[in-house]
Amino acid sequence: MRDMTETTPVELLVCTTCRRGLPVEDDAQRPGALLHKALEQAGLPDGVTLKPVECLSNCDQGCSIVLRGGPTRWTFVYENLTETEHVETIVDGATKYLAAEDGLVKWRERPEHFRKNCAARIPPIGALK
Amino acid sequence: MRDMTETTPVELLVCTTCRRGLPVEDDAQRPGALLHKALEQAGLPDGVTLKPVECLSNCDQGCSIVLRGGPTRWTFVYENLTETEHVETIVDGATKYLAAEDGLVKWRERPEHFRKNCAARIPPIGALK
Repeated sequence: MRDMTETTPVELLVCTTCRRGLPVEDDAQRPGALLHKALEQAGLPDGVTLKPVECLSNCDQGCSIVLRGGPTRWTFVYENLTETEHVETIVDGATKYLAAEDGLVKWRERPEHFRKNCAARIPPIGALK
Repeated sequence: MRDMTETTPVELLVCTTCRRGLPVEDDAQRPGALLHKALEQAGLPDGVTLKPVECLSNCDQGCSIVLRGGPTRWTFVYENLTETEHVETIVDGATKYLAAEDGLVKWRERPEHFRKNCAARIPPIGALK
């Protein structure tokens, strides 16, 4: 188990085009880009790769992130995140996700915001018959 | 392009445990299971494999489905689906998804319900730098 969690890459995708329902001037940084920037400086664990993406199509409940990690892990989409309130939450949740072979962190161990703001989870590729 | 779309498997995942916010007696079939059953009989195209899953964690907006298809396609989560109203919609959307190499069906060609009820989309694995 240890080998698998150490070698299977985990990606943290952040929607950088998210406006979080706010009016944003063309030349202003969007909330999604600010969240991405805050996570760049947040000290994510080795093994979690932060990647910007354009639109996760969850605009009404942004900002949104995805945690995914190879063919063995469930994929999770989390929503209603802000760069001022939830950076620590995301680091905590990503760290636990990295440590879980199948990506399923025990319910009571998940950050509260993750428990209440999961947009969707998707089973691992190849897990279904 | 033709070869790729013909050989890359497409999966249609249906959350069969979904209650769609309704009170469901223990021995009654759940709305998600009814949607799955209706899709079994709906004549999905060859190349689209229907698979039941337990909880996509989008319970407040169920019933929910996922369309995904190998490492080249975006993954989509759609919501607010019923077995009485949306079987044809799902077959139509899945058929177009199968035909799209990257899973991105042109906006105006997507079924209206898909345009208005996309819970999330996730980029293909390996597509990000």
